[in-house]
Amino acid sequence: MTERVVLAYSGGLDTSVGIGWIADATGAEVIAVAVDVGQGGEDLEVIRRRALDCGAVEAYVADARDEFATEYCMPALQANALYMDRYPLVSALSRPVIVKHLVRAARQFGATTVAHGCTGKGNDQVRFEVGITSLAPDLRCLAPVRDLALTRDKAIEYANRKALPIETTKHNPFSIDQNVWGRAIETGFLEDIWNGPTKDVYTYTDDPTFPPVADEVTITFEQGVPVAIDGVPVTPLQAIQEMNRRAGAQGVGRIDIVEDRLVGIKSREVYEAPGAMALIAAHQELENVTVEREQARFKRGVEQRWTELVYDGMWFSPLKRSLDTFVADTQRYVSGEVRMVLHGGRATVTGRRSEASLYDFNLATYDTGDTFDQSHAKGFIEIYGLTAKLSAARDVRFGNGVDLGSGALPAAEATADA
Amino acid sequence: MTERVVLAYSGGLDTSVGIGWIADATGAEVIAVAVDVGQGGEDLEVIRRRALDCGAVEAYVADARDEFATEYCMPALQANALYMDRYPLVSALSRPVIVKHLVRAARQFGATTVAHGCTGKGNDQVRFEVGITSLAPDLRCLAPVRDLALTRDKAIEYANRKALPIETTKHNPFSIDQNVWGRAIETGFLEDIWNGPTKDVYTYTDDPTFPPVADEVTITFEQGVPVAIDGVPVTPLQAIQEMNRRAGAQGVGRIDIVEDRLVGIKSREVYEAPGAMALIAAHQELENVTVEREQARFKRGVEQRWTELVYDGMWFSPLKRSLDTFVADTQRYVSGEVRMVLHGGRATVTGRRSEASLYDFNLATYDTGDTFDQSHAKGFIEIYGLTAKLSAARDVRFGNGVDLGSGALPAAEATADA
Amino acid sequence: MTERVVLAYSGGLDTSVGIGWIADATGAEVIAVAVDVGQGGEDLEVIRRRALDCGAVEAYVADARDEFATEYCMPALQANALYMDRYPLVSALSRPVIVKHLVRAARQFGATTVAHGCTGKGNDQVRFEVGITSLAPDLRCLAPVRDLALTRDKAIEYANRKALPIETTKHNPFSIDQNVWGRAIETGFLEDIWNGPTKDVYTYTDDPTFPPVADEVTITFEQGVPVAIDGVPVTPLQAIQEMNRRAGAQGVGRIDIVEDRLVGIKSREVYEAPGAMALIAAHQELENVTVEREQARFKRGVEQRWTELVYDGMWFSPLKRSLDTFVADTQRYVSGEVRMVLHGGRATVTGRRSEASLYDFNLATYDTGDTFDQSHAKGFIEIYGLTAKLSAARDVRFGNGVDLGSGALPAAEATADA
Amino acid sequence: MTERVVLAYSGGLDTSVGIGWIADATGAEVIAVAVDVGQGGEDLEVIRRRALDCGAVEAYVADARDEFATEYCMPALQANALYMDRYPLVSALSRPVIVKHLVRAARQFGATTVAHGCTGKGNDQVRFEVGITSLAPDLRCLAPVRDLALTRDKAIEYANRKALPIETTKHNPFSIDQNVWGRAIETGFLEDIWNGPTKDVYTYTDDPTFPPVADEVTITFEQGVPVAIDGVPVTPLQAIQEMNRRAGAQGVGRIDIVEDRLVGIKSREVYEAPGAMALIAAHQELENVTVEREQARFKRGVEQRWTELVYDGMWFSPLKRSLDTFVADTQRYVSGEVRMVLHGGRATVTGRRSEASLYDFNLATYDTGDTFDQSHAKGFIEIYGLTAKLSAARDVRFGNGVDLGSGALPAAEATADA
Repeated sequence: MTERVVLAYSGGLDTSVGIGWIADATGAEVIAVAVDVGQGGEDLEVIRRRALDCGAVEAYVADARDEFATEYCMPALQANALYMDRYPLVSALSRPVIVKHLVRAARQFGATTVAHGCTGKGNDQVRFEVGITSLAPDLRCLAPVRDLALTRDKAIEYANRKALPIETTKHNPFSIDQNVWGRAIETGFLEDIWNGPTKDVYTYTDDPTFPPVADEVTITFEQGVPVAIDGVPVTPLQAIQEMNRRAGAQGVGRIDIVEDRLVGIKSREVYEAPGAMALIAAHQELENVTVEREQARFKRGVEQRWTELVYDGMWFSPLKRSLDTFVADTQRYVSGEVRMVLHGGRATVTGRRSEASLYDFNLATYDTGDTFDQSHAKGFIEIYGLTAKLSAARDVRFGNGVDLGSGALPAAEATADA
Repeated sequence: MTERVVLAYSGGLDTSVGIGWIADATGAEVIAVAVDVGQGGEDLEVIRRRALDCGAVEAYVADARDEFATEYCMPALQANALYMDRYPLVSALSRPVIVKHLVRAARQFGATTVAHGCTGKGNDQVRFEVGITSLAPDLRCLAPVRDLALTRDKAIEYANRKALPIETTKHNPFSIDQNVWGRAIETGFLEDIWNGPTKDVYTYTDDPTFPPVADEVTITFEQGVPVAIDGVPVTPLQAIQEMNRRAGAQGVGRIDIVEDRLVGIKSREVYEAPGAMALIAAHQELENVTVEREQARFKRGVEQRWTELVYDGMWFSPLKRSLDTFVADTQRYVSGEVRMVLHGGRATVTGRRSEASLYDFNLATYDTGDTFDQSHAKGFIEIYGLTAKLSAARDVRFGNGVDLGSGALPAAEATADA
Repeated sequence: MTERVVLAYSGGLDTSVGIGWIADATGAEVIAVAVDVGQGGEDLEVIRRRALDCGAVEAYVADARDEFATEYCMPALQANALYMDRYPLVSALSRPVIVKHLVRAARQFGATTVAHGCTGKGNDQVRFEVGITSLAPDLRCLAPVRDLALTRDKAIEYANRKALPIETTKHNPFSIDQNVWGRAIETGFLEDIWNGPTKDVYTYTDDPTFPPVADEVTITFEQGVPVAIDGVPVTPLQAIQEMNRRAGAQGVGRIDIVEDRLVGIKSREVYEAPGAMALIAAHQELENVTVEREQARFKRGVEQRWTELVYDGMWFSPLKRSLDTFVADTQRYVSGEVRMVLHGGRATVTGRRSEASLYDFNLATYDTGDTFDQSHAKGFIEIYGLTAKLSAARDVRFGNGVDLGSGALPAAEATADA
Repeated sequence: MTERVVLAYSGGLDTSVGIGWIADATGAEVIAVAVDVGQGGEDLEVIRRRALDCGAVEAYVADARDEFATEYCMPALQANALYMDRYPLVSALSRPVIVKHLVRAARQFGATTVAHGCTGKGNDQVRFEVGITSLAPDLRCLAPVRDLALTRDKAIEYANRKALPIETTKHNPFSIDQNVWGRAIETGFLEDIWNGPTKDVYTYTDDPTFPPVADEVTITFEQGVPVAIDGVPVTPLQAIQEMNRRAGAQGVGRIDIVEDRLVGIKSREVYEAPGAMALIAAHQELENVTVEREQARFKRGVEQRWTELVYDGMWFSPLKRSLDTFVADTQRYVSGEVRMVLHGGRATVTGRRSEASLYDFNLATYDTGDTFDQSHAKGFIEIYGLTAKLSAARDVRFGNGVDLGSGALPAAEATADA
């Protein structure tokens, strides 16, 4: 029986050529699978037909948009996932849901191998392959660009020779990956990290320099998940889409960083993620109101590790799952409303309210109604500061005390007027 | 011999009344000490004279601006210190330098007690008192507002009765603390956390809604410290002042959060810190280029703990000092230039360059010159993903594998066209 | 209606006198509650009658042994909870279960206050009071020894004057707290930290210097909890009791440390916890076999924080609960058997086996059957070490490379023989 | 000019054959370097001559014992370095010092390649190669066993054919690595993790089952480093050797664990490290007395990361160096004496004293002289527990409060006697 390979198919040149290239190299039948994670762009039925025209024996489109939003983006939102405090894991989040559909298709179509179009120097190859072997340890992985030396020049030559229905003449200067959570842009021009991004790299966001009038939005969360926008109920997918639209129109969510890849190199990345960045800002502030201090402090460390794991391709790992249980438990009371002004690249929280708020007006106020008993403070400070005080006394004893500065205070300063 | 009390003097109503109040309550002589940390506002010589007029036996003004910028703000910048990922520790940073000058004055003037004007429900009382007993375990602390029940009403009554040269009629709706690193605003109106800040709370920043033309600035760092702006050498103090001016003009650095206080309550705080926020953004990106990945990842946890310690009044604690050595070591190569555009509330890095960069164009590029050997990737992924793969195989063995979804793929999708 | 106070009653002098002392001071009726957490010693019915004889209007004994073992000791075992890497939280674990029964009794008997016999310089007062207000924010706390100045001398005088049925003449040199998880001993003699413990401080453990013949035991765990010993099914309580008996006979589990208390002082503590220490050692090794590496590494940090929180009286805090969910998730596969030799103070694991083992003989062996593909290693090392290599190259470039030692190698060493 | 290869030479079969094998495969001249890290065993001059007899063009023995003890073991002691809380990094510590001497020799002898005898499935290959490229990014690495397929069978055949002066007939069942810090043993028999170690695997330790009379030892530390034993000044090397002898005689320091290797597999390891384990136990307790609580708590996390980095071959990495500065700073006051009893496998601290102690008898004592002001406790507890209390009140409000148990208390318990 002929071997079968499931290929993660994007509709672009590399994976279109990949269909025949894999078949030639391995003798296998290729099943093309395109997973819709909200990347927009071409019609997916067109993409599916192209796969067949390029020689796939089967072609399959999975609409994973709601699944991606609910099961991948929402946990990232609850974890305030920002790699290196900046990047909301756009591509990193989509890989595991794509992997899941690839493996499902491999099982369905009896394939023994899953192929993807990644190069050998990025993070995505790791995310795909570790994901695939985590879900199906028996499946093999194949990366034609990396393993079968399918370079761009060879791809163009092959496509022309085989008369594949794919554009080969126009060279797109940008390497793009996009989904509903955001958009990643790489380009040769940006590989000089002293160069700033040009305006044409952006499509999810309008220029924040000349914004329309400010847009006020109120987001309602239940347990860390947006459930309504301006009072209108939304699904997670709708919440992201709506915020992409409105925050995008204000130029919110452009990111430009030098980033540490898993494979050990630093790379320049530009992202735009208007909905993600606005939602995370709102979510963080709602947490400030509803999550207890020590829980919040520890959660920051958990968020960092969660984010690193997902960036590093470990979505399906045991530690990621255990961290999920921690994060989920912290979201129990992260319910309420956040009012936000979107304007000129800024997503600014201006109000927050929650039935589950730990903000206690009567404890916080300095006006009438203050219920905080200040008489406790003295005892608290005394015991709270005791270890520091004992250590400091030792420093003094050993001549290691803090230098207070030498010399008498200047007479003009130190003396009261006569 | 008469006891002496050193009082941290601001020139305002509470501490002006405090001079006599303490003298009355304790029989001690009061020495007023005002520490200039760049708070601007009234002339300090005027403040010094007022202290004497209010009954201080000595009054002393310390210019700690350069010291504050160099020894307190710069370590915070190197630690990217943002409490709860937002607040650059404006007040928290100034307390230890004020404490140092209070203790120095206490030694100089033979005082046995140091007094401050804090209430019993804030962080500052802890920062003052733990700081003071850390530098001078033998000194006593006194907080007239808290310990001697000096309420605002009593203060006004006292000031009027004694005819103190201090304004008592105008009630300022804002409670302000400011220094060169930023400005903190509290007010009764903001104690309703659903209310947004009004425009009149801000003075360090102009409204970002109607910004002037964009301002491009290049900041040069040496080991994590800014040494030049647009090529002009600056001291740390000058760097902060210049960035306050330029980023402030663009409305950069407004912060509005519900914050976890050390004393266990959540409180609403509004800050503005244009220079600090712009410098931190620039510094973080320069670190992205010059700090090795694992060092950078661990440093985030160190930054968080450093920030919590300083917020919590532990500037002089042993752990803070040990974390300082860690942070200092990471800054060895954080030297280079960052180009930034300041506009409409945004401080956006657009370029970075460094002799010590770990960004390697030839490893990063996808164009000609690529030196990254992709043949290593397969072996890396195999071993890197091994523990996840073994765990996943166990999950499958125990029936705990990831659910791939049930049912056949829809025929329309799953079948190739005839 | 008369106020009622629930008192945590131990049967000893302090709390026996406390019954009348509280009644005298507050006019309230006192309900004595003794909670059995396996402390052994006196018959609890005797203790109950003594409480009534000392003036309690009600006296109540709760058998919390199984609950304590299952709901408090087992989570500690799963968390390998050793404060400062040494102390298995003996007293710290029992406080929350006692608190729960005190609050339950307060609700049942309509009390408004809960009293305990702790001093003002230990951890237990915090554990009691934070626990009580966490379960019942409306209840007040009272500590007669601390708040009503019930000193030992006054207690003896009071007991003699009131002819209370309690021994007052014999002064026990030891301050003891014990339960099924272990035993804590403090004594004036040990307050000199250069003194070693004398033999008479121990009762749970025999002298390890002259042990009986070695005792081999096999412990079966399910999800981190012991379910059988030498093949005989056990409850958690039975597991601890059996291991206390057998490990105790071999002198296992004596601990002697200087410990950091929550109230800021260091104190000398001696503990014995034969069952706890043996079970933790077995559990840790079963985790080594069944928990994935990254999960295990992160869990160490979680264990430390969990342990600190419980030591610090935060059993009922939100963070503790969230950490519980993390720990529970890691225990999914911690099932299997551990063989251990108990002898002369040592509890040594000699074998481990598990259906859920991640130890793979074929990957590990250097003999026939090796399935580890060593060809992956080169690529792994190259990419794994890349960031270190790039950093090192920079060090060399900047003259900061590792000093290899100067001078030529000694001729005698460096030259081959002629 | 002929290429030169520096080979890490042990004197055993693999590396003896490796000399000729490398020469045959590469045409290079081989320089054999043996580094003395206190492994004992054969005379190093004999080993050096064997290398020459096996075909090395140069052979070189470096006495790195003092350097190893001082610059590698002492930092590990200060970090209380125990991988997975058990393994004192015996082999992991020696690799970087060996690497340093290999690179030094490569520079001296003009070699372009460094070779080592490791297989492709262990940690040591990573430690060697990442270490070598960190010190000398231009050097190549070669592993004949892994890269040139030098199997044991081939090695025996080669040795016999070439009549190399090396024993080939006797098959040692154990794979051993040893140095002054400890000894690692692997063997086929132990690859069944249910098997216990047999007595013949140990040489550094006598059987703890039948110990000689107890041995009391007093160790003096300066800044975390042992400087005297029983009052006799010692170098770090002497301290380790002396403690190896005395703790070894009592059977202290045997370790048997299933361990997580960097290459992703779990492996069974047996170690003995009598001196290391006794010194770490003493050092930890001296830290308990001299290190401030928060510093000590954070240090545990640093220790874990330090230990993982060193285990994982990252001795020369930037993060390791930054952690070193943290650890060094914590050791400032870790000076004093620890008295320890060595007996029957146990190293038990019985006393500790230090000029720099933070243990304050007057704060700790419950007897006369108590200076702890218990009146502070109430205020401390109130504020310390406030966030937990507010959270708990919310739980109650939302019906999520702790379940206190249902039903009335049993009448027999709940009712006072008539």
